[in-house]
Amino acid sequence: MERVVRHFQEELEGLQARLLEMGGLAEERVRAAVQGLVTRDMAVIDKVMRGDEPLNELHIEIDSRCFTLLALYQPMATDLRAIVAAVKINTDLERVGDLAVNIAEAARRYATHPPVKKLIDIPQMGDVAQAMLRDALDSFVRRDTRLAHQVLNEDDRLDALKTQVFRELLTYMLNDPSTVEPALDLILISRHLERIGDHATNVAEDVIFMVSALDVRHHPPHPVEE
Amino acid sequence: MERVVRHFQEELEGLQARLLEMGGLAEERVRAAVQGLVTRDMAVIDKVMRGDEPLNELHIEIDSRCFTLLALYQPMATDLRAIVAAVKINTDLERVGDLAVNIAEAARRYATHPPVKKLIDIPQMGDVAQAMLRDALDSFVRRDTRLAHQVLNEDDRLDALKTQVFRELLTYMLNDPSTVEPALDLILISRHLERIGDHATNVAEDVIFMVSALDVRHHPPHPVEE
Repeated sequence: MERVVRHFQEELEGLQARLLEMGGLAEERVRAAVQGLVTRDMAVIDKVMRGDEPLNELHIEIDSRCFTLLALYQPMATDLRAIVAAVKINTDLERVGDLAVNIAEAARRYATHPPVKKLIDIPQMGDVAQAMLRDALDSFVRRDTRLAHQVLNEDDRLDALKTQVFRELLTYMLNDPSTVEPALDLILISRHLERIGDHATNVAEDVIFMVSALDVRHHPPHPVEE
Repeated sequence: MERVVRHFQEELEGLQARLLEMGGLAEERVRAAVQGLVTRDMAVIDKVMRGDEPLNELHIEIDSRCFTLLALYQPMATDLRAIVAAVKINTDLERVGDLAVNIAEAARRYATHPPVKKLIDIPQMGDVAQAMLRDALDSFVRRDTRLAHQVLNEDDRLDALKTQVFRELLTYMLNDPSTVEPALDLILISRHLERIGDHATNVAEDVIFMVSALDVRHHPPHPVEE
C-alpha cells in the first residue's frame, strides 16, 4: 500500500509540474501577443497566431493524466480535490492560450492603422494578468490560500485599468472618427486581458475551495454538536 | 454490489436532472437579458442583474454532488468520464449566467441612449445561443454525439452573425459619432452571446470526448493491427 501511495504522490507531482509548464507557456503567449501589439511586429504576432499547438497538446496530456490518476488510484479527500482542481485549471489555461490568439488577431488589424495613442495601460494590464496567472498556479502547487486571495484582489486592479482604457478610447472615438476602428480593437484587447485575469481568478478560487474544504474536514466547524 | 451500482445510476440520473435544471435556468436568463435589451424594459433588465443567486447555488450543489459520487463510488471508465464532464459542464453553465448579467449591464447602458437601429441580428444570436445550450445539454444526457456535432456547426452561424453585427455597427459609428457609445454596447453584447455559444461548444466537445473514448474502448480503432 505504501508503494501505491508513493507512486500516487509522484504522479501528482508530475501532473503539477506539467500544469506549471503549461502555465508558463500560456503566460509567454500573452506576453508575446502584447509585445506584438506594442511593437507592431508582424513576425511576433504571426508566431502567436500559429503557435497554439504545444498548449493544446499539453491540454490533452494533462486531461489524460487526470483521468488516469482518478481511475488507477481512486484518490479521496484532498487528493481527489487536487485532481478535480487540476482538470479545471487545465481548461482555464487552454482558454488563456485561445485569448492570446484573439489578442494577436486584434493586434494584426490594429497594426494596419496609424497608432491611436502611446500604449501604457494595456501593456500594464498584460503585466498584471501574467502575474495573476503565475501567482494563481504557485498558490495551487503550494496550497497557499493567502497567495490565492492576493490573486482575487489583483483582479480589481485589472477591472479598474479596463474601465480607464475604455473611457480614454471612447473620447478618441467621439472626437475623431478615423480612430474608431483601431480604438475598437484596443477595447477588445483590453477585454481579452480582463478575461485572462478572470481565468487566473478561477484558478485561485479552485485553490481556496480545495484547501478550505480540507480545513473543514480537519477541524469540524461545529464541534459542540458532536 | 448490484445495489451499489443501482444507487450510483440513480445518483448519476439525479446529477443529470440538476444539470438540465441549471441549463434551463441559464438559458432563461440569456433569453430575459436579450428581451430586456430589445424592449428596453428596466424591470426585466434589473431582474437579470440581481437574479444570479439560484444559478450560483445550483453550481455549488452540483459540484458537491460530483465530488460525492467520485469519492463514494470511485467510478471507472464511462461513469468516471461522465462525472468529470459534469464538473466541466457545471462550470460552463455558471459562466453563462455571468454572461447574462454582462448582457443586462450593457442593455441598461444602451437603454439610456436613443436606439441605434432596429435589433434583428442580436436577438437571432440570442436564439441560436440558447438553442446551442439546450442541444448541448440534451446531447450530454442522451450521450448523442451526432447532436453534439450539430452544436459545433451552429457555432459557425453565431460567428457569422457576430461579424455581420460588427460590420454594420462600425458603419453607424463611422457615420454618426452620437451612435459610438450605444453601438459599442451592442458590439459587446454580441461578443457576450458569442461566448455563450463557446460555452455550449465546450459542453458539446466534452460529450464527444466522453462518448468517443468509450467507443474507442469498445471498438479498437485499428483492428487490422491486432
